[in-house]
Formats: sequence, C-alpha cells, structure tokens
Amino acid sequence: MNPVESEHHNRPRQGPVGLWLVGARGAISTCVAYGLAGLRSGSLEPVGLATEIEPLRGLGLVPLDELVLGGHDVCTRSLTDSTSELVRGGVLTQELVDGAREEAAAFEACIRPGILDGPDVGLADLDPRSAELGAVSPREQVERVRADLAAFAEANELERVIVVHVASTEAWREEREEWRDLASFEAALDAGAPQPASVIYAYAALGAGRPFVNFTPSRGSSIPALVELADAGGVPHCGNDGKTGETLVKTVLAPMFRARALKVLTWQGYNMLGNRDGEVLKESAHRESKLRNKDEALRSILADPAVHTGVGIDFVPSLEDWKTAWDFIQFEGFLGARMSLQFTWSGSDSALAAPLVLDLMRLADLAAERGEGGVMEHTACFFKAPLGGGTHDFGRQFAELGRYALERR
Amino acid sequence: MNPVESEHHNRPRQGPVGLWLVGARGAISTCVAYGLAGLRSGSLEPVGLATEIEPLRGLGLVPLDELVLGGHDVCTRSLTDSTSELVRGGVLTQELVDGAREEAAAFEACIRPGILDGPDVGLADLDPRSAELGAVSPREQVERVRADLAAFAEANELERVIVVHVASTEAWREEREEWRDLASFEAALDAGAPQPASVIYAYAALGAGRPFVNFTPSRGSSIPALVELADAGGVPHCGNDGKTGETLVKTVLAPMFRARALKVLTWQGYNMLGNRDGEVLKESAHRESKLRNKDEALRSILADPAVHTGVGIDFVPSLEDWKTAWDFIQFEGFLGARMSLQFTWSGSDSALAAPLVLDLMRLADLAAERGEGGVMEHTACFFKAPLGGGTHDFGRQFAELGRYALERR
Amino acid sequence: MNPVESEHHNRPRQGPVGLWLVGARGAISTCVAYGLAGLRSGSLEPVGLATEIEPLRGLGLVPLDELVLGGHDVCTRSLTDSTSELVRGGVLTQELVDGAREEAAAFEACIRPGILDGPDVGLADLDPRSAELGAVSPREQVERVRADLAAFAEANELERVIVVHVASTEAWREEREEWRDLASFEAALDAGAPQPASVIYAYAALGAGRPFVNFTPSRGSSIPALVELADAGGVPHCGNDGKTGETLVKTVLAPMFRARALKVLTWQGYNMLGNRDGEVLKESAHRESKLRNKDEALRSILADPAVHTGVGIDFVPSLEDWKTAWDFIQFEGFLGARMSLQFTWSGSDSALAAPLVLDLMRLADLAAERGEGGVMEHTACFFKAPLGGGTHDFGRQFAELGRYALERR
Amino acid sequence: MNPVESEHHNRPRQGPVGLWLVGARGAISTCVAYGLAGLRSGSLEPVGLATEIEPLRGLGLVPLDELVLGGHDVCTRSLTDSTSELVRGGVLTQELVDGAREEAAAFEACIRPGILDGPDVGLADLDPRSAELGAVSPREQVERVRADLAAFAEANELERVIVVHVASTEAWREEREEWRDLASFEAALDAGAPQPASVIYAYAALGAGRPFVNFTPSRGSSIPALVELADAGGVPHCGNDGKTGETLVKTVLAPMFRARALKVLTWQGYNMLGNRDGEVLKESAHRESKLRNKDEALRSILADPAVHTGVGIDFVPSLEDWKTAWDFIQFEGFLGARMSLQFTWSGSDSALAAPLVLDLMRLADLAAERGEGGVMEHTACFFKAPLGGGTHDFGRQFAELGRYALERR
Repeated sequence: MNPVESEHHNRPRQGPVGLWLVGARGAISTCVAYGLAGLRSGSLEPVGLATEIEPLRGLGLVPLDELVLGGHDVCTRSLTDSTSELVRGGVLTQELVDGAREEAAAFEACIRPGILDGPDVGLADLDPRSAELGAVSPREQVERVRADLAAFAEANELERVIVVHVASTEAWREEREEWRDLASFEAALDAGAPQPASVIYAYAALGAGRPFVNFTPSRGSSIPALVELADAGGVPHCGNDGKTGETLVKTVLAPMFRARALKVLTWQGYNMLGNRDGEVLKESAHRESKLRNKDEALRSILADPAVHTGVGIDFVPSLEDWKTAWDFIQFEGFLGARMSLQFTWSGSDSALAAPLVLDLMRLADLAAERGEGGVMEHTACFFKAPLGGGTHDFGRQFAELGRYALERR
Repeated sequence: MNPVESEHHNRPRQGPVGLWLVGARGAISTCVAYGLAGLRSGSLEPVGLATEIEPLRGLGLVPLDELVLGGHDVCTRSLTDSTSELVRGGVLTQELVDGAREEAAAFEACIRPGILDGPDVGLADLDPRSAELGAVSPREQVERVRADLAAFAEANELERVIVVHVASTEAWREEREEWRDLASFEAALDAGAPQPASVIYAYAALGAGRPFVNFTPSRGSSIPALVELADAGGVPHCGNDGKTGETLVKTVLAPMFRARALKVLTWQGYNMLGNRDGEVLKESAHRESKLRNKDEALRSILADPAVHTGVGIDFVPSLEDWKTAWDFIQFEGFLGARMSLQFTWSGSDSALAAPLVLDLMRLADLAAERGEGGVMEHTACFFKAPLGGGTHDFGRQFAELGRYALERR
Repeated sequence: MNPVESEHHNRPRQGPVGLWLVGARGAISTCVAYGLAGLRSGSLEPVGLATEIEPLRGLGLVPLDELVLGGHDVCTRSLTDSTSELVRGGVLTQELVDGAREEAAAFEACIRPGILDGPDVGLADLDPRSAELGAVSPREQVERVRADLAAFAEANELERVIVVHVASTEAWREEREEWRDLASFEAALDAGAPQPASVIYAYAALGAGRPFVNFTPSRGSSIPALVELADAGGVPHCGNDGKTGETLVKTVLAPMFRARALKVLTWQGYNMLGNRDGEVLKESAHRESKLRNKDEALRSILADPAVHTGVGIDFVPSLEDWKTAWDFIQFEGFLGARMSLQFTWSGSDSALAAPLVLDLMRLADLAAERGEGGVMEHTACFFKAPLGGGTHDFGRQFAELGRYALERR
Repeated sequence: MNPVESEHHNRPRQGPVGLWLVGARGAISTCVAYGLAGLRSGSLEPVGLATEIEPLRGLGLVPLDELVLGGHDVCTRSLTDSTSELVRGGVLTQELVDGAREEAAAFEACIRPGILDGPDVGLADLDPRSAELGAVSPREQVERVRADLAAFAEANELERVIVVHVASTEAWREEREEWRDLASFEAALDAGAPQPASVIYAYAALGAGRPFVNFTPSRGSSIPALVELADAGGVPHCGNDGKTGETLVKTVLAPMFRARALKVLTWQGYNMLGNRDGEVLKESAHRESKLRNKDEALRSILADPAVHTGVGIDFVPSLEDWKTAWDFIQFEGFLGARMSLQFTWSGSDSALAAPLVLDLMRLADLAAERGEGGVMEHTACFFKAPLGGGTHDFGRQFAELGRYALERR
C-alpha cells in the first residue's frame, strides 16, 4: 500500500507545493529528501510523521508525493557527502540512497547559495557566493532570496512555497530596538543595518506571502516586527526550535511531577552530539540560543523558582548524528524522602527532525490554503520555544493540536 | 503556616472522618500515619499530595486534621518495628517518629485482626486470630469486618468511614462464575464458598454503605457482583493497583511515542524491590496479579500488537522500601533508524503510595458526601488498572480529574 | 600499512593453518570470515584483537593471512543471509561484504553438515543431513567429524587445524558417571550412549591431535574424560564460554569493590539479546548453562556468601545482534552508607566474540607448535568459566597471560 | 568481636598515634571521627577499610583504638552542624552521633585555627583567626602550624603525629620557579613570598619530621622542593587527590578496553556534587585542579591521543554529600562496530574518603616506624595523581600494594 494515497479524498486537486529548505545540504534536509523518496517508492513506512496518523491524517493535507524540494545553503558540500556520513551511522540505508539518485539530483539542482550569517565567517567548505551574499546590504539580500523563491515556484509550477529554516543555530543576538515594530525594522533595512540571516529569510518569505517555519533557535520570524508583518499580510508562520529529543522527554516528564505534587529539587541535563550542528554549538555564542530554550521549557512547567536546573551541551565527534543525552532528576516525595529518576536518550537528531519538518510544512500549507494567517499556535507541540507562547506541557500542547484538527474536519 | 488549614472555607463544619486501612501495620499505612502527624504539626510540607494543590485543593475536601485512623492487619508486628526499617532507609526521620508517639499509639489502638487470605498460610509473625478468621465462613468474616468498622465509627463519632485496601498483593484468582452478578455472589456466600480476603473487605464495606478504595492489584471491589452492589447502594468505590512509580512513568512516556508516530519495537522493564510487598511478590501466584496490570497499561497505550514488551519483578532485600526499576525502550524513527530511551527510577514505594491513599480517601469522602455512587471514574489517574476502564495515558487521565474538579467548584 | 605483516619476523615460514568453526553459518563465524577478509585487504584495522598488540603481538603467532576457514553447521542458511542481518544492524558494512565475496564463497565451500544436538530437534532451516547425523551412533558421529577435518586439512595443505566451537548454547546436561574418566567414556561410546554434540566435536578433535577451543557454555572438552584425553595426547585445549561483554565488565568491577573492602549487598544483572543465540536461550534448558557461568564468576570474586546476586536473560528480537545489559550494584561503604553503581552495556555480541576467536585459535596454534598440551591455563581471561579454574578477576587473569607471553619471547 | 583487636600481635606495644586533619570540621573529618568511634564501640563493621583485610591486615599497623584526633580548620562551624547534614543525608546515623558525643568533644577540643589560603577570602563562617593567619608571613605561618602539632603531640603523649590534608580544593597555582628545589623555596620563604596553604602545612609537617598525606588535588608536598625535603629528612609522604569514586571506576574500566584492544572513541564524564567541596569547585580556579587529575588518569591508561575525553563538574546542592556521576564511553570493536558503556555512580563522597584517610595514615605511620622516607609509591592506588607517578591502572596499582605488604610480613 502506498501510505500517502489515502488522504487525497479530503482535498480538491491542486498543483504541487514547494518545500524550500534553508540549510538544504545539512543532515535534516538530507533526511527529508531521501525519506520522501522512500515514502513515495513504498520502501519506507511513514514512521515519525504525525500528519500520517489521526487526528491529523484526515485533514486534507498536501500529499507527500506532490512536494517539490529546493533550498538555500552556504556550503558547497554535495548531498552525497551528507549521505555517506548518515549511512555509516545507520540513519540512512545504502539501498535508499541508491534508489533515490534521481530525486536527489533534482533536489540538488534546486539549491541556491544562501546568506552567510555575519558571525559565521571562517566556516569550512563555504560557498564563496554565500560569503559575498553575506556582505551585501540587507535589502539586496532580501531581493536575492525572493528572486530564488520566485524562480523555484515558476520553474516547478508550484501552487505555493513553504520556507522551512533548518540551518545550524546562529550566534545569539540580543533584542534590538529596531525589531520592536515593522516600521522600525523597515527603516533599519533602509539604513542598511545588517540582520541575522534567519531574519532576512523570514522577512523575504513573509513579505512575499510565503509561509515560514523556523525549526531552529535562531531569531527568524520571532521578532515583533515580523510577527506584525505576518499578521498584516495574513501569512502563517511558526517556530522556534524543533522539540525533537531530550526536551520532548522533559516536557512529558515534568508535568507528571507537577500533577503528583512531587517537588523537583534538581534537574540536570547533559547533551552530547557530534554532527555539524554540534560543532557549531561548540561556540558559546551559538550555544546560548539553544540552552535558553531547553531550560526555559522546564522551569515554566515546574513553576518552582527553587528548583535547581542545569543544561550542558558538548560536542562529541564520534557520536556523529546520534544525540545522546542524560538527564538526572532528584525529587522529594511525601515525608521529605529523596528520590530520583534518570534517563538516557539516544536518537538520530536528523531522523527525528525530518518528519517534523514535513508535518509542519503540511500544516503551514493547510493554514495558507484556509487563509489562517499569523502565528500557528496549534503547532506549539513541535517547538521548544513556541512563538505563540502557552504551556510547554507536551500532552496539553498535543491536545490543542488535536482540537484544531477536529474543528477543521 | 499550617498547610491543612486553608481549604476549610469551602466545607461546612462536619465531624471527623475515619480512614480504615486494610494492611494497617504495613509500610504504606505507617507512612500515612506519620505523614499525617507531621502535616498536622507543621513539621512536614504536603509534598506528594495532589489534593493539596490545584485543581483539587479548592474542592472542600475533608481537612487532614479531621482524619481518624484505624485498620485491619493479619500480623502482629508493632508500628515501631515498621518505622525502624523506614528510618534506617531514609524514608522517615527519627524526629518525626519521636514527635508522633501519641498519634501512633492512638492508631495502633484501633487496629483489629484482619482476615488471612487462604493461600497465605505460613506467613511470618501472623496474628493467630487472623488465621482463625481466615478459616470461618465468608458470612461470618463479613460480619466481623462490619462489626469492627461500626465499632470504630461509633467510638470516634465519625461522620463516615472510608476503607482503603493497602495490604500485600493476594495470590491471583481466575474469574469465577459466582462473581458475575450480585445474586450469584450472595448465593455463593450463603453456600460458604471461600472468597479472597480483599473481596470480603470490599463486600463488607460497600454493603454497609462505606466507600471502598482498592490500592492493590487484588480483586477487591472489581468483580461484577460488587460493582453492581456499589451501583445499587450508591456507594462510591475505586481501584485497582496504585500507579505510583515505574508504571506512572511508562504511562507518560508511551503517549509521547504515540503522538509522534514513533514505532516502539521493545519496552522491557525490570523492577526490583525489597520490602514485605516484594517478598510476597516472590511467589509467582502473587506476582501474576501485578505483572498483568503493568504490561496491560503499556500495550493499551501503544496499541501496536507487534510491540515486544516484558516486565520483570525481583525481590532484592537490600533495597528495602526503595523500588528501583530500569526500563529500556527501543523505537524506530523516520527512515527506519533505531533509537532508544532508557530510564532508572529509584523511589520509596511507601512514601509514593501514602499521599495517594490520602488523596483517594478524600475524593471518596467527597463523592459520598455529594451522593455520587458507583465507580469513581475520575480517579483513573491514580491506578494501574482503573476500575472504570478508559485510557491509560496519565496526562489525559489527569485532565479528566481536572474537569471533574472544575465542575464541582 | 598491512597490519598483519609485522609479526612474521618472529616465526619461521610454515604452511597455512586451518580454523574450523563449529557453527560456521552463525553470526560469530560470519564476523570472523568478513573481518579476516577486511584485515587482509587493509580496509579494517585490527581493533579488538589482543594478539595484535603487546604483550601478545611479538609471540610469533600464525599470521592472519595464513588462516584458512572451514566448519560445521546444522542449518542451511547461507552466509549471505547472515550478513544482511548484520549489515542492517550496523555491525558489518555493505562495502566489506561486497569486497569479500570471493573469500566468503571459499569459506562456504568448506562448510559441512554438523551434528544436531539431541534436544534441538525442530529448529528452523535445519539441514536434513544434520538431523540424520544427530541420530547415528556416537562412534559414527566421531568418524564423520574426523573425516571432515582430515579432508579439509588435506585439500588445503594445512599444517594444522584448530577447531573452535561457536555454535549456539546446547541444552544443559548434568554431570554423568560415564564422563568421569576416559575409559568410562570410551565404554559409553562403544555402548552407543548418545552424547552432547559439543562433546563429540571435542572428542573427535582432541583424539585426532587437533587443538580444541570451546567458546560456548556447552560441555565440550570440559568433561574429565576429555581433559584426560588432551593431557594424554598432549593436545592443547581451552574454554568455556567466551567472556565478551557484561561478564567481562563484571569481572573488572567486582575486584575493585573487593580491593576497597566495600561490601556488595546486591548485584543484579539483566541481559537482553535478539540474535539466534538469544532465541535459543529462550528455552530454559539452554539458559541454564549460561546463567550458571555468569553468576559463578561474580560470586567467586566477591567471596561473600551473603551477597544477593541475580542474572536475567531475555530474548528481545528487535535488538538483533546488539546485546544490551543493565547491571545494578548496591554496596555498603564506611559507616554503613548505602551506595550504588549501575551500568548499561550495549555491544554487538558477534563483533565482540569474533576477534577473541582469532586470538584463541592463534594461541592454541602456538601451544600446539610448542608442544604445550592440556588445558591452556593462560587463556583464562577469555572465558566466563575457564577450564583450568583460578581467579575470575580479569586484571589478574590478563596479567597471567602477559607473564606467559613474556616467558615465551 | 572487636574488629580492631586482631592486629595487635604483630606490633610491639607503643604509645598512641596522632591523626592531624587539615580541614578538621569538614565532612571527611566528621566521618573519620564518628567512624572511629563506631568501630571502637563495635557498632560499626570496618567496611571500606582496606587495612582491615588481607593483604594489609597482617602488617602490624597502628590499632584504630590508639588513634588520637586533632586538626586545623579555617571555619568555625561546629562538628554537630556537620553531623546533622550527614544524618539527614543517610550517611551517619543519629545513634552513632548520639553514642559518640564524648569522642567528638575530645576531637573538637583539639582543633586549632588553620591558615586561610589567599584566594579564599570571603568564605562563609570563616574563623577570623584564620583570616589573620592567612595574612602573616609564610615563616610565621609555618611556626604556628608546628607549634600546634607539637602541643598536640605533647598533650596526648603521642608517639607520632601524621598530618592528613583533607581541606577543600585550593585555587589552582601554576608551577613556580621558587619551587624547583629546597634552597629556592627556603629563599622564597625568607623573602616572605606567600605560599598556598597546603604547601605551608606540608612544609611545616615534613620539616618537623611528621609524615604528610595529601588527600586533595592542592599542591601540598608535591612541589619538587618538598619532595627533596622529605627525601633528605627521611620522612614518608604521599598524595595527591584521593581516588574515591568515579575516577576509581574509570581506572578499572579503562584497562579492560586496553587489554581487549578495543578502541575507545569518547569518554565523557559528568560529576555532580552538593557538599561544601562542590561549592568550592564551582569556582573555576578551584575546579581546574580537580579536572586535570580526572582526565589525566584516563588518557594515560588509554594511551591513544585520538580519544575524545571530557569531564564536567557541577555543583548540585540537593545532592549534599552524594556525588552522582554519569560516564558515557563509546568504543569501536572489531569490524568498526560502535558500541557503548555507560555507568552511573552514586556514593557518599565523605564516607568513601574517610576509610582511605585511615588506611593512608596507618600506612604512613608504618613507613615512618620502619624508617622508609620519601614518596610512598606503594600507595598509588589511593590517588588520582600519585606522587610517584607510574600506572593509573587500579588493578596494577593494587597489586603493587599487595607486593609491598607481602615483602614486609
């Protein structure tokens, strides 16, 4: 059985939809591309795709075989290089890679040089065109991004293009006065004030009416000016920072302690990862973005200022794409007795992220089709720092998504 | 601040309420007794008591300082013996024990010989009166239990007595024809057919209009005949098998895998415990009851007949009251990548159970006061095998309890 | 660099040596065959081979490129089937398999039908010739094994053939009177008394002057009659039960507690494995053999009759060749404080065993060349139940092996 | 049986011996004091004391009931305060504390104000006399320490006084030119150059012919000038940094990987601790000393420059004296297969250290009695950074200690 067939019946026939991946040569995009190929050929089951099971399955989402891939990247590494690492690590199989050469080539033909984020000068295998693009005026950057998106849409006769940001975490940027509303931001652009690359992508997409999904902790569309832009234009967007592994587990365990009135004394988490994302996170400026989200989710659920929390991230090259995390939770129960829970999570970060990227782009496409602009609050369960705020409790977030789905059937 | 004061305002002034513990000399009852004393004196915080936080706190539950303790037990061990083990293990502090001598003595004065369950002949420090009581006709057993309850209520001028079964797990009993409805069961009693002790207690309580909580995997009030009796008499009851530790964690983690469409391949759990309950579970007849509930909750949530599950229970004397469990979960993600999560839970079983006993008896008392008879379906989140069935997903169970509370404010 | 070149200088030029694997189609043999091919081609490093580092490296052992493989097996599964499972599990790479087709075919051409062990009737993909062979008289079985070995030696012009038993664990057999000395055993054979297959192999090999290595917990050459035979004939042999994973870790940790005078209260170990060996161990008769050795090593080192130990083995199909074990150790320190150590071991059983098989066959070959007959006591560090007895402390066993090596340089 | 009686026979009757603890009010000293009292009264077994089992037991060491305790400390906290924390944490029992009031008072009467180490200004509950003492000239500091030791020896008619440094880790100090030999050091003292407190204690002790044990990572007697002084004066000394927990486990596991030719790719260790030592280690200057030793031991055993190692230490207040460490080891086996071992250690740091302090002081006393001056190389197994260098392999270190013992019987 072709697992992507069944939901057609709820959806009027339309043209194909574009999935534009910022960070197109990275491990997540590679998993998206080969996963899609495997799903279409029937060699893979849709494991990990929440949009392929209830309550989302019946929503009339864009069929997976109508997606067309393209994207930006700042490096020149070929997709084949990314796959060999993933095959060796047991994430992709050689069969899948061999069987999808054509699809991979088609995707690669649609990858354009991205914008190098200012602080990232010095990266290995950098595309010189990206370095160049990183140095031009922000208005020019925006124009270039928009032109790439438009060309992609036209060439592939796409009904819609969804932009998903899956590039490595950017260096942390403090809030800026110029971000507080759209007018100030436009003025800053006019004045040539350099912006984080993720913000340029988001602005370029939203301003052109294209939905934007920020799967990273980078600023993206989260600054007030862009939230305003999306609301004004009625363009759906969501983010930030995909909740794929350790934080996911945290946000299901923490509510349990809360519900039982158990007093968490300490929650210490150590993350190790070895892929390019991990390498980037070695830099403390980049790590800052990540750690904030991980800690915040927990503290928000536990709601006890006295709890001691700590999060560590270490780059461990031999782990490659396999994120391994150990969390230690000490808690007090009745009578003051001190107890503990510890867990070790070992998962392929990219294989966990890729299906969520597909889920989110399909939900963004649905929202756009239905004219639902602004922050997609129902997608909170996918993010460590959901744009619309709200609870971090995964169970409650997921129940919200379920309610959204039921209302739209 | 006395933590038990604040909820008085929602409740009209009434007399004290009795908490009758079947298994009164065991570790859970000991923790209940000393915990109550510590809460009253203000030396303990109400950690672990869900009825002391929202959404239950505002329900007008019986104040903790209006509870009076009594109970049945089949052994003669003094409470002091139970405490010394718990103090050595760091569950109780010596200060708490020293400060509650008077309350402990009052409780001990209200403990009556219980009914020895048939297969348990040969237990150490058995009360000879319990052995005797185990051998008389079921009708006579029921009369004796009812007489004890009535005497307790009268002597202490109790508005109501809630019976909570916290004795060690009984040997597993297959379904019986005579349990299928009340008439058959009454006939069996008339015919002198021996019954599990937990069933006798439940029948005695419910038939006398006293709410019954079965915190153990033993049959208790779960047989159809007694469900019928409770419905007919409008007496609230609930059970079975308190969800205190490893199973609690399982029922918050399993829904996460489900929601994310991740395919659990294997869920293997190993439990070690060293207290009297663990010793009883060494016997495979007794272990059977426990293992069924642990495995069933998981399989029900994962809803995948192909998943491989396994549960082990080992008696490890040196752990005493400290249940230590290791769970290993292997799952498949997108692209067929195999990942794992493992956790180690280390908690004092009795300190985890005791506050739930208090929560449940207060909820049972509330239900009785409000005239809500039959199975207390809103208490499903407290049990491994909830009497009313329904989901095993802890988050959803807890949301149900929240809804119940909000409707009753 | 070819890693197998360097030790030639210590060894006079000789002919090739045969490695005869009983269980030739199993995962260990598959790893041996492909590993050897990879080492020869230089695509693999000699990781895991103790004979390739000091103090063993300089002993003049048979070079790895002079080994010729053959063996017995009772099933008909092709090597290719074994490899596909190992490739999927990340143990073998497809490149290695593709590059060694020729060597694999050569090995497969030298595999002969083995003897089905009595209790194993009903196995899947059984070679009917093995079933037949399992039913003939023991004398005839011995003749058939010897004929196979002789034909192999002759066809490949081998200087020597080392028989290594790596078949799945046999059903446990109690000690027998007929095993107590060689004469009794010969009489039993004459009388047609059926013997465990491992005993037949060992008798056939040793009686023909061929060294025998028992890598399994099966009886093999450990019965007194065969120890006598090996001594009398001056044939080296060793066993039982390769110390590859969890037990290896146990036998380095336990001496630490001993040296520090810490009092181990409980050592509970849980093993999960999913390969054919695991499937065989599901049968309690087969598991018995394994559990004895695992527990015995520990109890012997701790030397405290009061210690509580437990060992579990569970068959978990999704783990395939990946043995995962969790050990929990609770110990008492100074002042009676109770502490714990827990570890999780996750290793490919076959990839751990294969290099030890090569190490042991090379050491057996060396012993034979030097005329050292009888039990190879210096190999104790390789076994869970070393034939020559002695300490189970891995560090001390390894120091013994070092002394052996230094004396022979 | 009184466990401390039996070794008298090997030892001629002598006077009592003094154990002078630098850091006398800390948790280790508290455990030493109460542990000694419990051993003398027979309420404790000598668990954790290597000098109470073979091969050390028969050496004629000073009997535990002939030890007299005294020491220095820079804070004013009473021993009772230290005990209440340890009782609450389950390290000490209240019974033991209650039964040893007299011994504790006697010890406390022998505690003198210590020397505040320069960088430690600002410590809580600081003894103002220590702050003062930290500011005087190094020569004056030395005189004060010597006077305290002499007074203690005289008042208690001690045959000998062993100084053991168990104070919190000092801030890390780089090597200094003035430490390279005794003459330079004496000149620096004359010139009034401030010295780390641990160096002053070591100099004061060794120069007065009193053995010195440095249980901490602070410099102590490890600087070349003091090694020279000890050699010249024939005074035994040893250090640095007691190997009590996680590092102990590391140095038994790492040799296993080495012996099996397994290639460790990554060894990442995370330590959490909550006592005063942990608080001090929060300061990065102090942590530096500790981390060096932990990492160095491992790298030295693995002897592979390519291995990735990492060590973290976090201060987690709720753990109090319970050090909890998680180590993750990823290694490559045969065929390049990637495997892992992870362990969690949970132990009371002070209860682990205290018996080693007793072992070391007894061995130092024995060395002094036998006229064995200089570095006590046979004590390497007790230290993370043994003064005499040599292997870090615990098994081999312990075998050395065994040889030392056997030669002296």
